Amino acid sequence: MKALVYVTLKKTVLDPQGATIARALNGMGHPEIAAVRQGKYFEIELADGTSRAGAAANLDRIAADVLSNPVIEEYRVEIVD
Amino acid sequence: MKALVYVTLKKTVLDPQGATIARALNGMGHPEIAAVRQGKYFEIELADGTSRAGAAANLDRIAADVLSNPVIEEYRVEIVD
Repeated sequence: MKALVYVTLKKTVLDPQGATIARALNGMGHPEIAAVRQGKYFEIELADGTSRAGAAANLDRIAADVLSNPVIEEYRVEIVD
Repeated sequence: MKALVYVTLKKTVLDPQGATIARALNGMGHPEIAAVRQGKYFEIELADGTSRAGAAANLDRIAADVLSNPVIEEYRVEIVD
């Protein structure tokens, strides 16, 4: 079983890195790019025999406590396989 | 319309950052975490009136040329909305 965790800056938080990428792409001949926001992505392999429900609860705690900064970031957890 | 781009290290490339996160989580009482791989995640807002087919082709080029290093990374593009 695998868990995918997506961590992004909250909508209200300025993302200068994303803004720079958007400006660079506009300058490189991609005027269709309106905005870019960058985030982090974690692929987490879970040990065999882990229960789906337990994993979901654990991963939620891990995402909130370790992988993201809840003051400025939000996260989304997906359990796959 | 929005494009989501996921950039991850190729399976054959060592990910010391992910290994460190996995070890830390194991030490914090999460023995069910077998492995972690970290990647990047981009949310790209496209200007109104962009065609879906054109966006897919453009985004594929952008992901390969700008957002990822094809020597060590692979990417996946999703067009949503």
